[in-house]
Amino acid sequence: MFRNARTTLTAAAALCAASGAAMADEALRADALEWFEPIPMNPPALENNVVTDARVELGKQLFFDPRLSRSGVFSCNSCHNVGMGGVDALETSIGHGWQKGPRNSPTVYNAVFNIAQFWDGRAEDLAEQAKGPVQAGVEMASTPERVVTTLESMDGYVEGFAQAFPAEEEPISFENMARAIEAFEATLITPNSRFDQFLQGDDGALDEQEKRGLAAFMATGCASCHAGVNLGGQAYYPFGVVEKPGASVLPVGDRGRFQVTETAGDDYVFRAAPLRNIAITAPYFHSGTVWELEEAVAIMGVSQLGAELNEQQIADITAFLETLTGQIPDIEYPILPDRSAETPLPDEM
Amino acid sequence: MFRNARTTLTAAAALCAASGAAMADEALRADALEWFEPIPMNPPALENNVVTDARVELGKQLFFDPRLSRSGVFSCNSCHNVGMGGVDALETSIGHGWQKGPRNSPTVYNAVFNIAQFWDGRAEDLAEQAKGPVQAGVEMASTPERVVTTLESMDGYVEGFAQAFPAEEEPISFENMARAIEAFEATLITPNSRFDQFLQGDDGALDEQEKRGLAAFMATGCASCHAGVNLGGQAYYPFGVVEKPGASVLPVGDRGRFQVTETAGDDYVFRAAPLRNIAITAPYFHSGTVWELEEAVAIMGVSQLGAELNEQQIADITAFLETLTGQIPDIEYPILPDRSAETPLPDEM
Repeated sequence: MFRNARTTLTAAAALCAASGAAMADEALRADALEWFEPIPMNPPALENNVVTDARVELGKQLFFDPRLSRSGVFSCNSCHNVGMGGVDALETSIGHGWQKGPRNSPTVYNAVFNIAQFWDGRAEDLAEQAKGPVQAGVEMASTPERVVTTLESMDGYVEGFAQAFPAEEEPISFENMARAIEAFEATLITPNSRFDQFLQGDDGALDEQEKRGLAAFMATGCASCHAGVNLGGQAYYPFGVVEKPGASVLPVGDRGRFQVTETAGDDYVFRAAPLRNIAITAPYFHSGTVWELEEAVAIMGVSQLGAELNEQQIADITAFLETLTGQIPDIEYPILPDRSAETPLPDEM
Repeated sequence: MFRNARTTLTAAAALCAASGAAMADEALRADALEWFEPIPMNPPALENNVVTDARVELGKQLFFDPRLSRSGVFSCNSCHNVGMGGVDALETSIGHGWQKGPRNSPTVYNAVFNIAQFWDGRAEDLAEQAKGPVQAGVEMASTPERVVTTLESMDGYVEGFAQAFPAEEEPISFENMARAIEAFEATLITPNSRFDQFLQGDDGALDEQEKRGLAAFMATGCASCHAGVNLGGQAYYPFGVVEKPGASVLPVGDRGRFQVTETAGDDYVFRAAPLRNIAITAPYFHSGTVWELEEAVAIMGVSQLGAELNEQQIADITAFLETLTGQIPDIEYPILPDRSAETPLPDEM
């Protein structure tokens, strides 16, 4: 009887504890839903672009085609590698002539959810963004004219653009190249991370440390800038709100959004980095000089929050950030159109 | 009545013509089967390597992983692009530090059927080949030690090698990297070209010009060197059996197989290029200086056959060569293992 009674009491206590934990999880989830939202299972609709299968398929070919670069060496995928979290895992990218770019390559995954593109937000959408690297001298070093000549020279692209832009008289254009790439990139979303499972009601999707990390992420103020579906990517903030990090992390020569707006208030201002898949997209910051996530979290604490996060908080927040790795979509490697005698030859000079 | 009789006669004549054509096709096929064989639908077994699913999947990750290069920029796929006929469509490849390699990148498709690898055959199989570019200073510029350290640093590779080489105590090694890549590359075959359909009995797979081209390919002597399943890749011949082409096509500094054997007879000797998918793997020759297939055919006529092929023959043979484009396999882009704090950082210097 006694043993039975004790068993019953223990069971009741366990039940209470479980119910207490469930209530705590519910409260944590309610808090989190004030700040964040899960990535949808399907790509979002785009302003100014219709995401048809034909446009996505064409965009995928363009994304993988190194002939969009002058040298024939680099494709979009070179720096936004879909097999490596959508980045190149370099401090800053290597481009035409082995030049080193000025900023770390941001991930293409979930980029569609950012308010604007590039670290300084200078492109309002992915189509606008796609035109940048193709022309940048340190990246793909091509020109709109060369790109259009290249695309027009290949029957496969002539057909592909006609199918992707059926209503247009001249389907092949630099603008439509960008729109097709945008359509493909809009499909590059990574739903169903453990964090999203938690947001959607699965208490067991995060462990205790990860839940502490999520709570700390909100309590210490990280979520003030890193909010929304992408936990960042929604607004601009000075790097070093409280204290500027050293020049190795924040090089003096790169004044961020100031270079776009030429407004004093935008000096060293950058778009808050989106944190989706952050655990698999090292190195960190626009300078790409920090390779470990713990270190990046610690630097953020000092420079943005003015609070030295303790070791436990850093470990917890890092553990939470690791739950932001989502489900990478299946991507079949595209067969690229054959060249013709009219296709411009690669030029590595 | 008259009209009916004429109709009957015409039908009979057509039948005779058709049957004559069928007989001619049968004879052409019989000739062709003396020289060539179709690509099998399934990858061949390998000597010294067991092609398991785990090994192929690991090999695919390695093939696409730029972290096998010192800079983190180049993967096997950079120069053997599976979406572009297995080549990079450059004269010669661009590698580490923007250096230009000495020879045109051969296609990885159907390479498993070649007698040996590289233009000079210095690697006896694909595993041996795979070790070359990884270490070549002008290509990926890494070392076996750096590669092994890189692979051991990532849990995904530790698991992948354990599954791919389950019987071995130390599954991760430079040797096993090469064997896994070989296993993947052995799956990169392109069966079912129109030429193979013809070889297998479908008279309608080739049109009249293509059939004339096939006949000319055998009659003029091309097939003497370009035979077997790969129409080449089986033996070594001097480039310029009859007349050396100009230095732009045959640079004097590259003495071919002589550099491997140091035998006078091997001066300017190269492995006969395999011609599978030749229409989609420009530019041509080890120097990569010829971009049009017709021109390559014409050069071969003069330098190897000592016969100036007439325009019709060149057009016919070129049309035939275009029927050698096979069915490219479906390749899902692999998700590459995550780095760890122990992973060597990219080094572009």
